[in-house]
Amino acid sequence: MILTVTPNPAWDITYSVDALAPGRTHRVRHVAERAGGKGINVARVLHRLGHEVLVTAPLGGATGDLVRAGLAGLDHSIAPIRDSTRRTVSVVTDGDATLLNEPGPALTAEEWQGLRALVAARLDQVSVVVLSGSLPRGVSPADYADLVRSVPRPTIVDTSGEALAHAASAGPDIVKPNADELRDLTGCADPLRGATALRSQGAHAVVASLGPEGLLAVTAEGAFRAAPGREVRGNPTGAGDSVVAALAVGVAAGTPWPDRLRNAVALSAATVAAPVAGEFTRDEYEKQLAAVHLEEIPCPS
Amino acid sequence: MILTVTPNPAWDITYSVDALAPGRTHRVRHVAERAGGKGINVARVLHRLGHEVLVTAPLGGATGDLVRAGLAGLDHSIAPIRDSTRRTVSVVTDGDATLLNEPGPALTAEEWQGLRALVAARLDQVSVVVLSGSLPRGVSPADYADLVRSVPRPTIVDTSGEALAHAASAGPDIVKPNADELRDLTGCADPLRGATALRSQGAHAVVASLGPEGLLAVTAEGAFRAAPGREVRGNPTGAGDSVVAALAVGVAAGTPWPDRLRNAVALSAATVAAPVAGEFTRDEYEKQLAAVHLEEIPCPS
Repeated sequence: MILTVTPNPAWDITYSVDALAPGRTHRVRHVAERAGGKGINVARVLHRLGHEVLVTAPLGGATGDLVRAGLAGLDHSIAPIRDSTRRTVSVVTDGDATLLNEPGPALTAEEWQGLRALVAARLDQVSVVVLSGSLPRGVSPADYADLVRSVPRPTIVDTSGEALAHAASAGPDIVKPNADELRDLTGCADPLRGATALRSQGAHAVVASLGPEGLLAVTAEGAFRAAPGREVRGNPTGAGDSVVAALAVGVAAGTPWPDRLRNAVALSAATVAAPVAGEFTRDEYEKQLAAVHLEEIPCPS
Repeated sequence: MILTVTPNPAWDITYSVDALAPGRTHRVRHVAERAGGKGINVARVLHRLGHEVLVTAPLGGATGDLVRAGLAGLDHSIAPIRDSTRRTVSVVTDGDATLLNEPGPALTAEEWQGLRALVAARLDQVSVVVLSGSLPRGVSPADYADLVRSVPRPTIVDTSGEALAHAASAGPDIVKPNADELRDLTGCADPLRGATALRSQGAHAVVASLGPEGLLAVTAEGAFRAAPGREVRGNPTGAGDSVVAALAVGVAAGTPWPDRLRNAVALSAATVAAPVAGEFTRDEYEKQLAAVHLEEIPCPS
């Protein structure tokens, strides 16, 4: 079973409007809402792929109740918290999306320990632990690194900023920054240099997502670029979560790095191609998989 | 007791952000939320003034549960509905407010009858009925006019468009459009002509709110203008609901029109002056009341 940790889950609300005009009143055409936060999104992808998965997250308040109800169908184990879970509102037009992220809850030390205890309690059934998304207030990057360090299983971390820096130094198996996160953290404009630098801080492998150009990986087996071979157009929301899900499957199965990356690029591209954020069709996934262009980078450093 | 009917209540969420930039991601600085919809706002003002009040509204779904919990402290009688109550999101910066209104529930004929039954059941304790805000889907302007016609008590109606047109013809005691609503409905650029035209359709009195210029009323006792005599700066949200609340108090007490209008202008101005939407201080209300400028319009038509 793959266990995902979502330290800062959310109730994601999407409003479709004709256009967003600051200072005006808008009639929302359509409302979509669902449980979110990167670790929950990764779990949803894994579930859709047919893998056993366990969601762990802190939840509180009326919004926490909505998230819990929205997890129906996914095995989950919840740490109750006093503050209310956050909402996100995405205002989507034909052209773009405007995001409003609530500040969210502050966790007490006891609540964070409660979440850690949930993870520890199920470890004997777990092959891989995925830690994904931002940290709530009250949880420091050092707390997060402690959690990564404490897990006696392969770990995959997808976060940003100080949390990523600390987590990388805790020796996770994979960290998955995007190009912006990698540059912000390492100061390297070139993703290959940035990934190499981040790996030198302690992560066993760094997989950087480069948007439409696919993935760049620096691993113990070598460095690789993997790019989609079929045209990819659509909604990039959730593409990074599909990368993480595919990597988790690869780690659980012990797949060699080139195949992990082919699967990750293909699943990510299939997610972009699907009209609904975070979904994909098996057919598109297989077509993308057959077309992925993988190349080894001979002398990475 | 004053009974308010809110056909389309809402859970009002206010996000404070530094600036709203379409296409970007925003960190919300502060979240405020409360039960809303004009009839509920009017009831809150009446309660703050020390009057007995009963809120009636249809509510459904998880958002309906939030609204119901948010009515704690206000006497209320709820008609359950199957669809979920709507949310509104206001994104507030230093300069302006951007509103996102969800489409909200559609009521079945039975659900609308359920709301009407709640109103009928409490009428023997009621002196004035206030009907305020928009109509939900499934309820026609003719249904709304039927409700106004069926109430054997003085009625005050604050709505817009077709619902206002139909309600006015049902002979309510007062309708309270703002200048835009009055012009849209009657086609008259001059509010005095517009109010006179709307009154001729059946309303016993028309009180038009003209923003910072105060109120214009065409009544059976004559036509009046009432304007604030003290400077008014602040947040106009809820000012119209304060006008309606003051008029309801005046109708319940049988106050002459000039005094009703003085109270309505003063309470509205005090509401604008308070930093939180829909609130006011007793002190500012009394200062405004002493300063209101009231004039009778000698030959209105």
